[in-house]
Amino acid sequence: MTTNPLPSDKALVPFVSVDHMMQLIHHIGIEPMLCGLADYIEADFKRWQLFDKTPRVASHSAEGVIELMPTSDGEVYGFKYVNGHPKNTAEGLQTVTAFGLLANVGNGYPVLLSEMTLLTALRTAATSALVARTLAPQNARTMAMIGNGAQSEFQSLAMKAICGVREIRLYDTDPKATQKCATNLAGLGLSVTPCTSAQEAILGAQIITTCTADKQYATILSDNMIGAGVHINAIGGDCPGKTELAAAILHRADIFVEYPEQTRIEGEIQQLDPAHPVTEIWQVLTGQAKGRTSDKQITLFDSVGFAIEDFSALRYVRDQLETTRLFHPLDLLADPDDPRDLFGMLQRAI
Amino acid sequence: MTTNPLPSDKALVPFVSVDHMMQLIHHIGIEPMLCGLADYIEADFKRWQLFDKTPRVASHSAEGVIELMPTSDGEVYGFKYVNGHPKNTAEGLQTVTAFGLLANVGNGYPVLLSEMTLLTALRTAATSALVARTLAPQNARTMAMIGNGAQSEFQSLAMKAICGVREIRLYDTDPKATQKCATNLAGLGLSVTPCTSAQEAILGAQIITTCTADKQYATILSDNMIGAGVHINAIGGDCPGKTELAAAILHRADIFVEYPEQTRIEGEIQQLDPAHPVTEIWQVLTGQAKGRTSDKQITLFDSVGFAIEDFSALRYVRDQLETTRLFHPLDLLADPDDPRDLFGMLQRAI
Repeated sequence: MTTNPLPSDKALVPFVSVDHMMQLIHHIGIEPMLCGLADYIEADFKRWQLFDKTPRVASHSAEGVIELMPTSDGEVYGFKYVNGHPKNTAEGLQTVTAFGLLANVGNGYPVLLSEMTLLTALRTAATSALVARTLAPQNARTMAMIGNGAQSEFQSLAMKAICGVREIRLYDTDPKATQKCATNLAGLGLSVTPCTSAQEAILGAQIITTCTADKQYATILSDNMIGAGVHINAIGGDCPGKTELAAAILHRADIFVEYPEQTRIEGEIQQLDPAHPVTEIWQVLTGQAKGRTSDKQITLFDSVGFAIEDFSALRYVRDQLETTRLFHPLDLLADPDDPRDLFGMLQRAI
Repeated sequence: MTTNPLPSDKALVPFVSVDHMMQLIHHIGIEPMLCGLADYIEADFKRWQLFDKTPRVASHSAEGVIELMPTSDGEVYGFKYVNGHPKNTAEGLQTVTAFGLLANVGNGYPVLLSEMTLLTALRTAATSALVARTLAPQNARTMAMIGNGAQSEFQSLAMKAICGVREIRLYDTDPKATQKCATNLAGLGLSVTPCTSAQEAILGAQIITTCTADKQYATILSDNMIGAGVHINAIGGDCPGKTELAAAILHRADIFVEYPEQTRIEGEIQQLDPAHPVTEIWQVLTGQAKGRTSDKQITLFDSVGFAIEDFSALRYVRDQLETTRLFHPLDLLADPDDPRDLFGMLQRAI
């Protein structure tokens, strides 16, 4: 048996490994990359109505969930595979891992396969900062970061790069997580203040980000903690039964979401009546709906993550490949000389 | 910038490329592999009720369709990405390409990524032959193969290996396709007879397989062509608007399907009333429903392909990896030392 001759370009799909993604982030720089991702996400949110949108396809088990998140703009199709297994951390595994794919709608051929564990962390932070730039009070310079896990540094740097935040006030129930985050952020141009309570963390903060894990109907923020004129960026409430905010806060806030059909199942607003009014963020970005209208207003971005953000992130990565060459060609697709002769291709490999 | 140290085993997913799949098929032998796949498919059909079953998630466009086909048995999760673009052949591309993935339900980590263009061809043929072994008349030795495209050789060899078929009678509207199939099958232990019409091809055949492409409501088999005591294996009718058999045949046949919810949309029975009785093939395999009950009966397997068949095929491939080592380890998953410290992993790669 001999190995088949090298497959043609038609058979090869560019693959961005975790190692290549890390190289790409360092090559571009994390803050410029967060800005670039936010630009791609904003561009796709502004053409929201072009996209095929469906709630994710979830396979639930006792231990967690595996989801497929597909979307298409009519020319390019994308999907993300992502799991969520809260108990993984105890076994030294990631709670969330992900990979994604882009394909050509015209012929169905994949054009990019990419790791998305890192990329999802970046796109989540870029989306948060894009929305905060739109909704937070003018001249917001201080963010409280409640929950100092895997997402916290990315959130902090995105808010710095995209919204001009200069001070981050950290709090986590686990002081080691706060210490890890503070250490990671040292020397990156932010003033970082570790705090010993959520109450302390929100002092003077115009932006409050909550990103905690693995709590059923937790109350990370209670009603009395939230004064007028703040923007709340709530990320951790992202599946049925998992919320972070007291319902009373939701009733005082103007609520902005990605895709209501999904957020009403997975977000903070699962605590509210299904008819409670929310504003879709794409409508704010296109000028069809109002964002912040007064200094006193509490704005809340109830973020659960949506397939279009992954699509935008994959588009961004694909557009970097030609100049950076940070990918492997993957022999994923059969490529017979005659498309009807798959068997002949197989026999020629003997 | 230096390259990151090699990722740990946790971060690596075995990847079976097209080249490795070809090597695997030749290593095992195509007929033993078809038999092995049929055994895995039969085993999974016999535990049908354990599986999560949903119709595929399809993204349709003017040019074709891209589908995700997920399923799970509670311990292992699998999905296949597959496109269908009839016009691709004219551009030297495959009409159908596919890849698939298995993951551990317990922690959501992928355990196999594999090409599935070749594997889908094999599993489709193995499924057809598994069902024909159950439903075709005793001692069926002759099959008419109508439509001599990419699936035809695999069908022929599966029917030989699994059902004892000895003669294949070929017909295609394109004589070049018939010639290609006859050439490919030469010397493989089958008597092969090229025919110039479908009528000629079905002479003396106890099994009639139809697998033609790209026709809207075609009539490959008309009512007067089908006598008593045959088994029809209809593969080509596999999407809305695409059928191969005259409706009158369906009314004379006992119809067997994989998953009625999907077959009523995509299969031959889209021509029938939604209440027309059909039998699920898993019920025949478990003895809960009858298969062939008389020599005179016309049995019809209205096959559209189902996610569980892909799941079985991926399971089979995964079980060959340890002994054959025919895979590449793919750096698909981020693997920080501390799962909460994704940012730290990134910074250590500088």
